[in-house]
Amino acid sequence: MRAAAVPATSAAMIGIDWGTTSLRAYRLDAAGAILDRRESPQGILAVEPGGFPAILDQEIRPWLEAGESLVLLCGMVGSRQGWQEVPYLACPAGPAEIAGALVPLDFPGARCLLVPGLTTRDAAGVPDVMRGEETKLVGLLAELGDRAALLCLPGTHSKWARIGGGRITGFATRMTGETRAVLLEHSILGRLAGPGNGGDAAFLRGVRRAREPGGLLHHLFGTRALGLMGELAAEDTDDYLSGLLIGHEVGAALAEGMPEGPVHLAGSETLCRLYALAFGEFGLAHRQHDPDIAAAGLALIGKTLA
Amino acid sequence: MRAAAVPATSAAMIGIDWGTTSLRAYRLDAAGAILDRRESPQGILAVEPGGFPAILDQEIRPWLEAGESLVLLCGMVGSRQGWQEVPYLACPAGPAEIAGALVPLDFPGARCLLVPGLTTRDAAGVPDVMRGEETKLVGLLAELGDRAALLCLPGTHSKWARIGGGRITGFATRMTGETRAVLLEHSILGRLAGPGNGGDAAFLRGVRRAREPGGLLHHLFGTRALGLMGELAAEDTDDYLSGLLIGHEVGAALAEGMPEGPVHLAGSETLCRLYALAFGEFGLAHRQHDPDIAAAGLALIGKTLA
Repeated sequence: MRAAAVPATSAAMIGIDWGTTSLRAYRLDAAGAILDRRESPQGILAVEPGGFPAILDQEIRPWLEAGESLVLLCGMVGSRQGWQEVPYLACPAGPAEIAGALVPLDFPGARCLLVPGLTTRDAAGVPDVMRGEETKLVGLLAELGDRAALLCLPGTHSKWARIGGGRITGFATRMTGETRAVLLEHSILGRLAGPGNGGDAAFLRGVRRAREPGGLLHHLFGTRALGLMGELAAEDTDDYLSGLLIGHEVGAALAEGMPEGPVHLAGSETLCRLYALAFGEFGLAHRQHDPDIAAAGLALIGKTLA
Repeated sequence: MRAAAVPATSAAMIGIDWGTTSLRAYRLDAAGAILDRRESPQGILAVEPGGFPAILDQEIRPWLEAGESLVLLCGMVGSRQGWQEVPYLACPAGPAEIAGALVPLDFPGARCLLVPGLTTRDAAGVPDVMRGEETKLVGLLAELGDRAALLCLPGTHSKWARIGGGRITGFATRMTGETRAVLLEHSILGRLAGPGNGGDAAFLRGVRRAREPGGLLHHLFGTRALGLMGELAAEDTDDYLSGLLIGHEVGAALAEGMPEGPVHLAGSETLCRLYALAFGEFGLAHRQHDPDIAAAGLALIGKTLA
């Protein structure tokens, strides 16, 4: 669906997923299909104060000149460290509630709107937040409609959301990817991990260990004990640790209630493959969705506006 | 019980707890009481290859000259990175089994013996290891005799051990202290933590959160969500995180079975105070022991030898 030149045709809007370390721009048609796309490493951490309008202009100028006039932006661009802070919108929320909470940005030559992040509270009243992922969840809502389902967006901070009646009813974040990274880089577990790749067998061994008693803090040390006893090779340590953490993540998510249908999974190919392996170990069906699901979400929110 | 000069009296042995970052030396009488002590920052990481005998000599020469001839050493000095590697001894093990597995060291002028670390396997067959803490556990055995009890040695790698019939029957390590340190120093949670001290209230709030559903990886991210929503002050973050991790540690340890009597606790004053607070939150009685319990353990092992 890529266009080499810029067609001044039936396009409907521009969608921007502007996160901490990258900017993804989509030119979308009225049906939400991607007509063109751009990706830049200018995430919000790389933007000087006051530098947001110029970078946006640079990324989307040709599309604006071709006639686009509506730009929706989601992600950390709406955080305190971004272009402008947008308050979190409380769950339950669907495309209509999100469209009603868009915040206009001062940008010459286009109607620019920031998508709010979402917040929720668990049974104990403790809050959780997301910013950027809500748009991906709306993209999944576009596919799943009114049915109740459990959604998983794996990553540095994995998001597990429940949808029903066409809205996001609540969610829980698990700090899986970041915990793995800091343990590998800075703890005694990283000093054990050798170069190489243990692959699926080491990963699944970690997932299975996560389902045994003892708790995560014990299982983490077990990675070292296995290494010291010669029962886990250095090249398997990284994958075993991933399996351990993802296994604990999935186990905790399922402890809140098994979904009736499959878990709906969207994210990078690499992560989705690992999560699919873990789901199999838990006897859990899943359905993998397009990684460009954010574009579909932006299109659905945009359509609600029109 | 400190001696300013070196009395050539009824002393019985020298005990050395030689860990990664420090060396603690005790001159013990026949009853295990501490006659004199020395502490040095020359942990095994600070020792050049081949440098162990010279450092030991420097630390204990006056005691040797005063007539001591038996030296027991425990801790990481018996690891691959130490003076000489001593194989782990399998649980169940008590003073007699440990004394039977001591490994002689080549050191002129004294009978030097290395205490072996311990290993155990859980119901799933996964190993755990300790090196140094076994001597503290023997010190607690000296006080507790044949009764069955649950022991907790909090720290970077907390050890939870079960004793019975005068032996250590098994144990589980939880990587609580190190996980806290790497998260505070290297993750997004540390960037939220401000200077100051939330104190017991913030700590206990974390312990209570650990007892709610969601899992540790979710609760960790909740620390950030609470901060973003203005519901956890920057100066409370560090203590809240400690409570969260110690709460998960204690909860996982108790999931393996509640002890019949109190939990027996030995460690630094600071950590023992926090763990005592956490135990209270779990409705768990505890008894705090002398932090010099390693000396008592070395004495008991030495006595078994005589």
